[in-house]
Amino acid sequence: MATADPTEPLLTLLLSLSLSFIAYALTSHLVPLLGPHLVDKGLAGRDMLKEGFKRKEDLKEGEELQGELLPEATGVIGASVYILLLSLFAPLPYLSHLLPTSLTSSLSALPGLNMTALLSNAVGSTTEPTHLVDLDTSLVFPHHSFATYLASLLSLLIATFLGFMDDLFDIRWRFKLPIPLIASVPLLVTYAAGHGITDIVLPKVFGLRELLGAAGTSGVVHLGPLYYLYMSMLSTFCTNSINILAGVNGVEVGQALLIALSISINDLLYLTFSLPSGQTFGVGLARGSTELSDRHLFSLYFMLPLVGVCAGLLRWNWYPARSFIGDTFCYFSGMAFATVGILGHFSKTLLLFFLPQIVNFIYSTPQLFGILPCPRHRLPRLQEETGLLGCSWSALDGREGRLGRGLLEVLAFFRLVDIIAHTNLTLLNLLLVLRGPMREDRLTMELMGLQAMGSAVAFAVRYAGAGWFYDGGRR
Amino acid sequence: MATADPTEPLLTLLLSLSLSFIAYALTSHLVPLLGPHLVDKGLAGRDMLKEGFKRKEDLKEGEELQGELLPEATGVIGASVYILLLSLFAPLPYLSHLLPTSLTSSLSALPGLNMTALLSNAVGSTTEPTHLVDLDTSLVFPHHSFATYLASLLSLLIATFLGFMDDLFDIRWRFKLPIPLIASVPLLVTYAAGHGITDIVLPKVFGLRELLGAAGTSGVVHLGPLYYLYMSMLSTFCTNSINILAGVNGVEVGQALLIALSISINDLLYLTFSLPSGQTFGVGLARGSTELSDRHLFSLYFMLPLVGVCAGLLRWNWYPARSFIGDTFCYFSGMAFATVGILGHFSKTLLLFFLPQIVNFIYSTPQLFGILPCPRHRLPRLQEETGLLGCSWSALDGREGRLGRGLLEVLAFFRLVDIIAHTNLTLLNLLLVLRGPMREDRLTMELMGLQAMGSAVAFAVRYAGAGWFYDGGRR
Repeated sequence: MATADPTEPLLTLLLSLSLSFIAYALTSHLVPLLGPHLVDKGLAGRDMLKEGFKRKEDLKEGEELQGELLPEATGVIGASVYILLLSLFAPLPYLSHLLPTSLTSSLSALPGLNMTALLSNAVGSTTEPTHLVDLDTSLVFPHHSFATYLASLLSLLIATFLGFMDDLFDIRWRFKLPIPLIASVPLLVTYAAGHGITDIVLPKVFGLRELLGAAGTSGVVHLGPLYYLYMSMLSTFCTNSINILAGVNGVEVGQALLIALSISINDLLYLTFSLPSGQTFGVGLARGSTELSDRHLFSLYFMLPLVGVCAGLLRWNWYPARSFIGDTFCYFSGMAFATVGILGHFSKTLLLFFLPQIVNFIYSTPQLFGILPCPRHRLPRLQEETGLLGCSWSALDGREGRLGRGLLEVLAFFRLVDIIAHTNLTLLNLLLVLRGPMREDRLTMELMGLQAMGSAVAFAVRYAGAGWFYDGGRR
Repeated sequence: MATADPTEPLLTLLLSLSLSFIAYALTSHLVPLLGPHLVDKGLAGRDMLKEGFKRKEDLKEGEELQGELLPEATGVIGASVYILLLSLFAPLPYLSHLLPTSLTSSLSALPGLNMTALLSNAVGSTTEPTHLVDLDTSLVFPHHSFATYLASLLSLLIATFLGFMDDLFDIRWRFKLPIPLIASVPLLVTYAAGHGITDIVLPKVFGLRELLGAAGTSGVVHLGPLYYLYMSMLSTFCTNSINILAGVNGVEVGQALLIALSISINDLLYLTFSLPSGQTFGVGLARGSTELSDRHLFSLYFMLPLVGVCAGLLRWNWYPARSFIGDTFCYFSGMAFATVGILGHFSKTLLLFFLPQIVNFIYSTPQLFGILPCPRHRLPRLQEETGLLGCSWSALDGREGRLGRGLLEVLAFFRLVDIIAHTNLTLLNLLLVLRGPMREDRLTMELMGLQAMGSAVAFAVRYAGAGWFYDGGRR
């Protein structure tokens, strides 16, 4: 029977890879096709880091904005492709539960043909009428798993829908901040319904356990409702942290692509795949736990098509960009990461894959929270004479106060900022401070390099280092 | 415990009524506030049935279009309000399952206070920390019910999202026809997962049972996959049948409002409400079946907020309209009806509430299927001298063929059409043919009167007449 079928992870992987490929093909086909329609509706912008672009304030009287209008918010195309694919193929992972037992058993009698047979049934091309839902009552439908699937799609679609509204109508900051919180409600209820664990295990360092009076020596703290607060913040963080590490062609999509790949690799570590011949391969960190391997299979099923969508968008968003992805993409991809992190029960591992985003966020706080002046755009500046990107600067206007000045001096001491005007506090500018001016695509590549290194560190901390901070045996 | 709590239907009804009121207040507040932003994005149109409007083809050279540009697609505002409310309040119907048993029992010890207590817990205003999800394992979470809830919201949001894309980008006919089909996939999987019944009972008349060889004398036919086809067609029908009975201020929203009310009344017939004092009231057609009463409670929970949204939209779409609702509304409301019909297992009763739409569709087929000429707009025509609406006409161009002519003669014989040019075949025109010219709001009222009469007939057929066609005892 289906749940016990050892070839299931392999079938799901193959199905997911196919969806990923279709997602890539559709996205990369549709972006140039639908782009002009976005431009028609005012979803368009000029590339600020290309020759000839002038900011509005630099224009002479009578002078018009130059540079080609490129489609904005193509992220909505990628997100639509993703959600429609995953909705249309929603029955497939559950097909073995929806088909009558007799059919399922005859299918498993044909090793190696399962996939083809399942797929052909799904599109109704069998010659014998398959009486769908002639259910043997012993075949219990996995309602919780299906609810998880639906909640994920619903959260993603809410985020995408509201993100698109933001791109279209330019929603004010105070109205858009709660968007990820609203979108995560279905996730949180599903988490709660799955007997969600609201305990955290505190690390052994810093005397944290004693400080918080964690029960006995096990270091378990029961967070209760606070854990739900933590998870809502997670969706807000995933969404916005990608959005503020932006401004250069391909950099948002590039980050998301690498995060999605890192999560996929992490998922693969937990799975064991069986060939119809009986051979097995895989790292199998789940160590026989169906629950663990199911969760990571679920995560993989959502991440691989996201990789496809990102690749499709990147094709047109890479330097020199032919289209921009808009806030829609950040809402959509951020929510996708939060979803698998929450419902896959690996939110802390997820955060490890956000190292560059966390660094960028912390480095940005003085400007984000108004301790130092913050201009509307903090992206690097094009040096017209060389065609390279250099840092962008915020002039000190004397209003930055003692806290701001002190902070600048500390940063300057470590050569993390130049003072007079100071460079804007973003990871992209920091790269330019440390490594000098470079071409735009090179900067994106270097940031993606950082992201990949971050993931390597994440894997090291998660699997080699966890033993230092926690009592052994945590998976 | 919660499922056995007899006050539950009453609490759900009160909650749903509150949501309905909030939905009305928000929608009617937001439409005039956000309307100008829709106009900015080109989501705007002129009222074709008001003095001064001229069709493009009637304009003299150099003459410009007259009449105020009104916001189009305000349906997206109503739909967003509805979906966000039902997502945000998703935990509420399941709260008794998510809270620890101790808390639930202490709540039920306070009769009459349940609602307040439940609500205050939901927003976290209790002073004692409530350890959410400290689940007693005997309290089984109703995963299937929750999956049903999620699938409904997902289907609604897909329909709304794609409907809005249609309003924004004017999607071509062949791409928009499958929209309701795609949106209904989550519904169908959920239906299948709930051990969906794919049998239908044939009526005793017309020798249908003998013709189709229905099993024995019970008249049960096993439709299997065909039943899923029928349900997908249902969503297409609900969506498009409202869309083609349109063209006059308030007429689409008015229809939807009355259909939603009719379904709500039908749902109420199945429920029995218990007061904390122990008194019960209600028709109780469910006759003790928890399954039946749950389904109708579910349907009621989705219909009442829809009534609120429709009322809010109608306030600004009523004659003389200050805004138009767009295709988004028809996709959204049509999908909402299909959802409760499918997952509430009363799709045939649902169709009875669509009598005017069915008549309009059948009456329209000669024009829709090209047997008779069909102009782009078939809405009635304003008679400038009286300010009343009269029929609109399609001139016979000699290309209508023998079939078309024959059909016209038959229709004319029954005085259902006037020949030379013939009146456009819509229910609105038919009303004008039969009852003479009238003012626009009067026409909407008369159509709504027809809709109400249709519902009365539907109730009669369903509850008094079903015995004539079926063997007794069907619920």
